[in-house]
Amino acid sequence: MALLKNHQWIYTKRPQSIVTNEHYTLKESTIDTSTIKEGEALLQSKYWSVDPYMRIQQSQHNTWEAPHPLYTVQGGAVVGQVLVCNDPKSNIKTGDWVLSYTGWQEYAVTKTSELRKLNPNEVPVTTALGILGMPARIAYFGLIEAGIPKEGETVAVSGASGAVGQIVVQIAKIKGCKVIGIAGSDEKLAYLKNVLGVDQVINYKKYPSHQKIKESIKEACPEGIDIYYDNVGGFITDAIFELINHKARIIVCGQISQYSGGLDTPEMGPRFLHHILYKRATIQGVLARDYNDRMDEMLSEMTPWTKNGSLKYQETIIDGFENLPIALNMLFHGKNKGKLMVKSTI
Amino acid sequence: MALLKNHQWIYTKRPQSIVTNEHYTLKESTIDTSTIKEGEALLQSKYWSVDPYMRIQQSQHNTWEAPHPLYTVQGGAVVGQVLVCNDPKSNIKTGDWVLSYTGWQEYAVTKTSELRKLNPNEVPVTTALGILGMPARIAYFGLIEAGIPKEGETVAVSGASGAVGQIVVQIAKIKGCKVIGIAGSDEKLAYLKNVLGVDQVINYKKYPSHQKIKESIKEACPEGIDIYYDNVGGFITDAIFELINHKARIIVCGQISQYSGGLDTPEMGPRFLHHILYKRATIQGVLARDYNDRMDEMLSEMTPWTKNGSLKYQETIIDGFENLPIALNMLFHGKNKGKLMVKSTI
Repeated sequence: MALLKNHQWIYTKRPQSIVTNEHYTLKESTIDTSTIKEGEALLQSKYWSVDPYMRIQQSQHNTWEAPHPLYTVQGGAVVGQVLVCNDPKSNIKTGDWVLSYTGWQEYAVTKTSELRKLNPNEVPVTTALGILGMPARIAYFGLIEAGIPKEGETVAVSGASGAVGQIVVQIAKIKGCKVIGIAGSDEKLAYLKNVLGVDQVINYKKYPSHQKIKESIKEACPEGIDIYYDNVGGFITDAIFELINHKARIIVCGQISQYSGGLDTPEMGPRFLHHILYKRATIQGVLARDYNDRMDEMLSEMTPWTKNGSLKYQETIIDGFENLPIALNMLFHGKNKGKLMVKSTI
Repeated sequence: MALLKNHQWIYTKRPQSIVTNEHYTLKESTIDTSTIKEGEALLQSKYWSVDPYMRIQQSQHNTWEAPHPLYTVQGGAVVGQVLVCNDPKSNIKTGDWVLSYTGWQEYAVTKTSELRKLNPNEVPVTTALGILGMPARIAYFGLIEAGIPKEGETVAVSGASGAVGQIVVQIAKIKGCKVIGIAGSDEKLAYLKNVLGVDQVINYKKYPSHQKIKESIKEACPEGIDIYYDNVGGFITDAIFELINHKARIIVCGQISQYSGGLDTPEMGPRFLHHILYKRATIQGVLARDYNDRMDEMLSEMTPWTKNGSLKYQETIIDGFENLPIALNMLFHGKNKGKLMVKSTI
């Protein structure tokens, strides 16, 4: 019998607004490595994903599923290495890098059938959490299948330098669209424009109201907006609803401006459905999980783009398991550039 | 030369909230009946359509087109009779009943190519304005093509006893759906339930807030809402967004609660796009004009239903050309049952 000391972040208190350390409890426990059953593997977590959807799951109300249960390990995607594999029939071997959904713990025992093997020689393993992971899946299918971008159309993207946004803007450019990216710092705008090739950029933090930002977006896109890929909601979205073109497609992938309380007690905003009527536009909500079974389809297109550098990406990597709740909090202050994750230091 | 005395309602002032007589000027003029050109006909208007979209076109802002021009005859659909036809090649003859778009005037000269001939022996001519007219076209295509109703699904309809709503509820029943109709008087509810076969009915005027009406809708439809055909907007719509099912389809056909000012200075309401995200729902704006070229397709299905009585309808007919602006105003107070029109008394 070998006992392995483990640490877990337990979700213990439902936040009313911003999520902080106080909503989690760090727990020490042990894993008996001799009790790993057939078909299971022991993983060491190396990178933990930190995602806006985690805050949605903390809402008091049902969302796409019941709220994240209290007093359990915070769920989430993890990139780790297999320390022990008790499954001779699996393609997973000791030492392999894998993607798992074992959440915020240093070590985890899980079924090998729930692991996706990664090839660290092909692309960096962290890409499995971002540019070739869940954010990529919804960026790709959300834009292509709900947005149906056509060459020459104008695509607006809110949260443009986030994990999903940075991918959407690039796919839209590959599809021959004019792209306007909206983000929250001049540094982010410079990256969007100079590295990702975004045509027009707007720093939403410089605007006090939806009327003012609307004027700037209109100036940047006098031809109007054909596709709006929305990660943010709130006043940016209010502005864009007034600028959409005939038969515009609005993809609701996220509403991060509303997550810290607005899901339980909605913020008030100007009614806009009449614009949808005038323009015979569509609004469609999209979730990455709906495309789980089409991961390979996305990867077959996106992996070559990533390998040959035509798809660029940023990652914000925070060191130390102990910083996970702080990292989650950072999302709601826009402190990440691209995909946010936490790296193990052990 | 024969001079015919004509009266026209001229749109002369843009309303800020409710439209009344003061926004129109009654003008007397003459038509020289000897000057009707080849390809033209002289009509006597018999029934004038009064529609919510007329108020949209009075908004200061562009909607689906520029605002209705001031100092011109109020546009709109008319059922009339041909007094003179100067077009031997046309199928239109003197004495024919026709549908035209010549607006609020007692007599009009128009191209015969812009007339649709009606058969008064088949169905009453007034049906061309309602149950077999523009409201039917958008009810039919909006529900069938944007809603895609499936047997056993639950369909909610706001403005359920209006010109469009009364048709939507019946098509939804024909398609095997459970239907909940929301309207503004107990008399309307009784008609919806007892005559049109609507399963559940709600009088929205009995509710002070979206939370309260939500509770009642939830009680009436514990299974949730699969399709919402929205003619009204405002707090009814707020409530339903919280009750939609996975992959719900929301059809925005009208937002009548917002027309009297809310299009220019939007009312505030709770943000709801996060629900669209959770449920991977779609919202789609629909306008009757997009289906103009498919009128025959709609009529081929709906005319037999109307003739055999399987499609029922109400009309509210106000006597007297002089009452047109008052009739338009009635729409925004829900004083119509089914299709509202004004009948000529000359």
